[in-house]
Amino acid sequence: MDGFKVAIVGATSLAGQEIIRVLEQRNFPVSSLHLYSSGRGAGRHLYYNHQPIQVGETGTNSFSNIDIAFFVATDEVSRHFAPRAVDSGALAVDTSTVFRMEPMVPLIIPEINPDDMKNHQGIVACPGCTTIEMVLPLHPLHKVNPIKRIVVATYQSASGLGSEAMDELTLQTKQVMAAEGTMPRLFPHQIGFNILPQVGVFMDSGYTREELSLGEETQKVLHDPDITVSATCVRVPVYIGHCASINVEFSHPVDSDEAEDVLSEAPGVRVIDDPTVNLYPQPWTATGMDEVLVGRIRQDFTHPSGLAMWVAVDNIRKGASLNSVQIAEEITRRGWLKSRG
Amino acid sequence: MDGFKVAIVGATSLAGQEIIRVLEQRNFPVSSLHLYSSGRGAGRHLYYNHQPIQVGETGTNSFSNIDIAFFVATDEVSRHFAPRAVDSGALAVDTSTVFRMEPMVPLIIPEINPDDMKNHQGIVACPGCTTIEMVLPLHPLHKVNPIKRIVVATYQSASGLGSEAMDELTLQTKQVMAAEGTMPRLFPHQIGFNILPQVGVFMDSGYTREELSLGEETQKVLHDPDITVSATCVRVPVYIGHCASINVEFSHPVDSDEAEDVLSEAPGVRVIDDPTVNLYPQPWTATGMDEVLVGRIRQDFTHPSGLAMWVAVDNIRKGASLNSVQIAEEITRRGWLKSRG
Repeated sequence: MDGFKVAIVGATSLAGQEIIRVLEQRNFPVSSLHLYSSGRGAGRHLYYNHQPIQVGETGTNSFSNIDIAFFVATDEVSRHFAPRAVDSGALAVDTSTVFRMEPMVPLIIPEINPDDMKNHQGIVACPGCTTIEMVLPLHPLHKVNPIKRIVVATYQSASGLGSEAMDELTLQTKQVMAAEGTMPRLFPHQIGFNILPQVGVFMDSGYTREELSLGEETQKVLHDPDITVSATCVRVPVYIGHCASINVEFSHPVDSDEAEDVLSEAPGVRVIDDPTVNLYPQPWTATGMDEVLVGRIRQDFTHPSGLAMWVAVDNIRKGASLNSVQIAEEITRRGWLKSRG
Repeated sequence: MDGFKVAIVGATSLAGQEIIRVLEQRNFPVSSLHLYSSGRGAGRHLYYNHQPIQVGETGTNSFSNIDIAFFVATDEVSRHFAPRAVDSGALAVDTSTVFRMEPMVPLIIPEINPDDMKNHQGIVACPGCTTIEMVLPLHPLHKVNPIKRIVVATYQSASGLGSEAMDELTLQTKQVMAAEGTMPRLFPHQIGFNILPQVGVFMDSGYTREELSLGEETQKVLHDPDITVSATCVRVPVYIGHCASINVEFSHPVDSDEAEDVLSEAPGVRVIDDPTVNLYPQPWTATGMDEVLVGRIRQDFTHPSGLAMWVAVDNIRKGASLNSVQIAEEITRRGWLKSRG
């Protein structure tokens, strides 16, 4: 069969299993699929097009005959193995935070900046899921009216920390309903029926690394170092689906109807916005969707060039897995896959 | 016993029962306590200082011998009965939305603007719980550096819609965990493990009434019609405790350490802000507290005079019941209770 030899590192993770689904659903040309995981996941079988594939343990030789390696494991795994994959001649599509801001590494949302991959050096990075949900709808607006400043507050689901974090949400939810105490493990405090204004580690500025990255990644994807982003990233007791409340200051006044027209035409974006029947994006309805959902588009009357909106995205799917596969699609379609040496 | 004849209208509600607790805890001078409710709650017994009190049905004659009537029922009940209470010579402390923006009705956060009650006409209004949690910490900062603009995104708990809404959250939580379907009743969509960017009804501007009220009430409490507020009010699957992410633009640059010093001295505010040990306000820890908790105080580096912060409040207690009792305390202490005619 004609196709690419594909590896998934972190195959047993939520995003890893979702990549398998996305490869199936989009008929990505796979000639062979190789699944890798850390010690704990290795040995399991996962199904690709109804065929069981045994998950191997990630090692230096995992990439000796691979065209495209998707990395959806930890930062540590990406830091160690993505360069090994490139050395072996593979394209590494990486969802970790490790390479995103490396100047030589393209940071790609395929609907926005696929051309940035043209001279890739083997690693292509996927932005954070929150960057994707914010920048995908902002890009078409930015093209017609440059964005100056963004104030954003997020509502991020437990799955952003993986399946064990979802289990922790389930356990604590049951404990709270049974009036039992809870013990945080993956989250810094109780997440069941609670809200935590912390995603990632705090920096000296009082912002978290996640909040600062949101701004840095936005600038890189949009090629505009003058856009400033003030973010508050918040964890909420939801399983899947990230949301964000976004206030944007443009260069010139913006009409909310015109903004909605632009967004309705934008690839990767679906406008869900009819207040008369209480229609707006929700994590529950975003789950399983390919698009970033956008709604509550309205003039921000407190700023002469302000617009407010609300977005939701399946943080596993478009936030990581789908975006990664789309990167592979674009790079192969354009013939930018480096031939193995 | 020396004291005031006190009535609570909506006594069986979350806020009504919390008023009883607050009256007990603060030793408010009560000579007699009269509890009223709509048809459904009437007949029940509630306890005040270990004494059972039967709840009567609210009627025109409920206020014939009352000094202070707390209204924590619906807008409809307040609209109809608060004027009756005033006609009967009582002070009506009202938590509904009905009278808040009436020019002759003082809108009071006792730590901020008690003097506004001096010439009250019988009704004193309590701001919305979200206004209270935002304005209480902003007031001391506004005094030293006038606020120009506020961008706020809220995280509001189910209890804002009453105890039945908390029951709906419980039911849907169990249904989701059992992989059963849910049926929204009080909320416009599923609230269990979901996020709804809607609190209240939508206006033509695309903002909800709640979002616009937050701005209007802020201007009234702070006596500053030039402050603008762009709000996104959001319901989250939490039982008690409202949070908000607040970005403030002041008249002059503000130092976050100085802001924290000011807030540390402010009445009704408790600073919980130590990122080095992941300390910040949460709804879970705000529950049962008298103060608005403030944390994540940091320079908003995207605006020359910007400050970002995160707040949490017990929306039932300081958000309604405690604030109402504090209003009664201030007005009686200052001798501003009108003598019955």
